[in-house]
Formats: sequence, structure tokens, C-alpha cells
Amino acid sequence: MSSRTVTASSPTPRRSARSVAPLHKGAQTRAVILEAALAQASRDGLEGLSIGTLADLTSMSKSGVFAHFGSREELQIAVVAEYHQRFEKEVFFNAIREPRGLPRLRALFDRWVRQVAVELESGCIYISGAVEFDDRPGPVRDALVGMVKAWHAALHKAIVLARDAGHLVPEVDVDQVLFELHGLILSLHHDARFLLSPGALGRACAGFERVMASSLTPAGRQLPAPLPRRKTR
Amino acid sequence: MSSRTVTASSPTPRRSARSVAPLHKGAQTRAVILEAALAQASRDGLEGLSIGTLADLTSMSKSGVFAHFGSREELQIAVVAEYHQRFEKEVFFNAIREPRGLPRLRALFDRWVRQVAVELESGCIYISGAVEFDDRPGPVRDALVGMVKAWHAALHKAIVLARDAGHLVPEVDVDQVLFELHGLILSLHHDARFLLSPGALGRACAGFERVMASSLTPAGRQLPAPLPRRKTR
Repeated sequence: MSSRTVTASSPTPRRSARSVAPLHKGAQTRAVILEAALAQASRDGLEGLSIGTLADLTSMSKSGVFAHFGSREELQIAVVAEYHQRFEKEVFFNAIREPRGLPRLRALFDRWVRQVAVELESGCIYISGAVEFDDRPGPVRDALVGMVKAWHAALHKAIVLARDAGHLVPEVDVDQVLFELHGLILSLHHDARFLLSPGALGRACAGFERVMASSLTPAGRQLPAPLPRRKTR
Repeated sequence: MSSRTVTASSPTPRRSARSVAPLHKGAQTRAVILEAALAQASRDGLEGLSIGTLADLTSMSKSGVFAHFGSREELQIAVVAEYHQRFEKEVFFNAIREPRGLPRLRALFDRWVRQVAVELESGCIYISGAVEFDDRPGPVRDALVGMVKAWHAALHKAIVLARDAGHLVPEVDVDQVLFELHGLILSLHHDARFLLSPGALGRACAGFERVMASSLTPAGRQLPAPLPRRKTR
């Protein structure tokens, strides 16, 4: 599975603020603004992004911020792309080290759950962005949809590989499994962040095992069981 | 199951714009404003509510709107309460006519799916409100949480009744079932409204049957099957 599966094209060149390689001055400044913008968008939503507030936060002039992002919309799209890059690094690239099949699919889901858990304080831009932009056509919505679809395509492929590896039955409904796994993540985000319910992490992981259970082959059932912490968190 | 199970207390007295009983002039005006506010909040979110825009929409002065809702926050809470009342009428009161047990639980889920389907154009205030207010403490968040929790409590009770009626196994994890059913609804809302994916309604209904399948008793399995349209939409 190449990184292209999950990486949607970025509309503007960018570097991560966490990049190890040295950055030129302009790129450094851009990375500092983007870091602040990502934090602001996680907290207040993409529509809560304000070039004025970012200028204050980064001790720059508004025209200085504008020099790096020509418009608020361009900034919003850059934030979506940056979020996607980090999500990909934390979730996708860590999980695809696992062997193809159910182990990789479980690792993808497990890393996704961990990512939502890490973001419980700040909020997930994919989830909040979907609600903010579901009825606002335009380039920001297009960027968000493109990246969520790229992630869904990566999961879809992992489910197909689990089937082809003989861990899931040949007749498994791949789109149905994807739909239900995504629902578990959305329910986790809702219950843990909005209702502040204890036990949501454990329920998401137990849900994964239950969704899989109805499609496992004997070979899939013989794979090592998940770690106990999945059910007790 | 009494209406108190699902009805959270409303902080302000109110009448539905759809009420059949004649309303006094003041109540009529309030109902007109609330109708416009509900439409605006469904489209732009509760944070998108603006007393100025509502004044324009209802051909009133801003002070006229203020006379009925002393603040934007009070208006937001009234919109949440109005939405809740309509949701209760469409989903809860229609579903509880079904016999206790799996038929009632299935009817609750089915009506919930229908409600989301009706709202695909406008958006669901519970779902968008949860994302808007998950990190904004205050009376609006409290009102939203109270009403979502009241709805969850009604579903929880319906699952318990399905267990007690012998349709679900005694060891069914009620909170887990509730978590997964809610996930199906959130996934439906996301896929149909944000990704514009065809087939999401059918997947939500197929998901319900799959969540139930692992907990059905022989008696539960002998109940009439759901209508075919559940799986083909």
C-alpha cells in the first residue's frame, strides 16, 4: 500500500513544523503560522480561523500572515493538508508495518482510536470539519472530502487485503464493514468529547472485535487475540 | 415509557409553531421567530444564529425579537428545546406504539434513521450541536447534553425491555449496543450528508440487524423480519 493511497494532493507546498530538516526562514515562518493555525482550528473549528488572531499569536502583522497564506480559505486548506499529513504519519504509516490482513486492519483501527483519544482535548478536524462544511460547497469542503475519502480508501483496501489473506470470509461486505468501523469512531468522539462518558474507548475497541466476529474465517479466528487493554480502557 | 423519559426540561415556556390550538398574539410571534430560528440553526449551526438576521427574516425589529428572547443564548436554548420536542414527536411517540421488546427497539431505530434522512438537506441539530459545543461550556451545551442524554436513556430503556421480553440474551451489553447503534446513525449522517455516498441509509439499517444478530434469542429470531426496503434503500 503506497502512501498515495491515503495522501490526497496538497494544493500548496508545505513543510511540517515538526520536520527535522532545517527550513529556510520563509518556510520556518510558514510552519510557525501553520502550527498556531492547526491549534486554533482544532479548538474553534476551521471556520474559527482568523488571520488577525493568528497574527497576534505569532507576533506578526496581518500582512505578514497574508504574505504566507494569500487568503483565509488558502489557510484553511493548508491546515486541512497539515492535519492530514500528521494523521497519516501517526495512524497510517505506523499501522502498515503490521502484516497484511486482520493484523494490519486491527492496527489501523487501533491507531485511529488512539488518535481520537489524543485529540479528545483538542478535537478532530476531520470530524468537526465534516459537520462545519457539509453544506458549504467550495475548495475547503473539497479538500476535506478528498482527504477523508483517501483515508476511507486506505481502510477499504485493508479490509479487502484481510479478505484476500483468508482472515475474513469471501462474501464480507467491505463497504458495510467500513461504514460500521467509522461509526464506532464517530460514536467514540461524540461520547468521550461531548457527553464525557467513561468507557467509550473500550466500547470502540469491543465494537471492532464484534464487527469482525461475524466475518472471521477459522484462520482469522486463530490469529493472536488483541491486547487486554483494548477492552478495559 | 412516559414522555418524561425522553423530554428534558425546557428552560423557557414555549409553544410549537405547528401546534393546532390557537395561540395568543405574543405566542404566535414567538412561534414564528422560533420556526425561522430552527431553520437557520439547522443550516448554519446554533452558533450561526443571529438576532439581526432573524429580525430581517421575520420582518421585525431587532428589539422586537429581543422582546421574545432576551439574549442570543436564550434563543439558542429555545431552538434546542423546540428541536427536541419535534424529534420526540416524530421518532419517540411514533415508535412507542410498537409492542415492547425488539419490535419497539427496531421502530425507534427505524424512525431515527428516517428522521436523519429527512434532515439530510438541513442537518441535524443534535449532531452538529455536539460538534459545535463539545468544548464550549455553558447553558447551551448543558441543554444539548441534557436532551441527547434523555434520548439515549429512552433507547437504553428500550434495549433493556427487549432483553426483559426475552428477545435479547440476558448477558447483552446494553451500553455497548447503544454505543454501536448511535455510531450507525452518526456514520449515516456523515456519509450521506458530507461524502454524499449512496447506500448509507441501507447500511445503517443492515447495521442494526447485524448489531442485534449477535444478541438475539431464539424467540427474538422468530419475530417478523424487517421490511425489505430496509436493506435496499
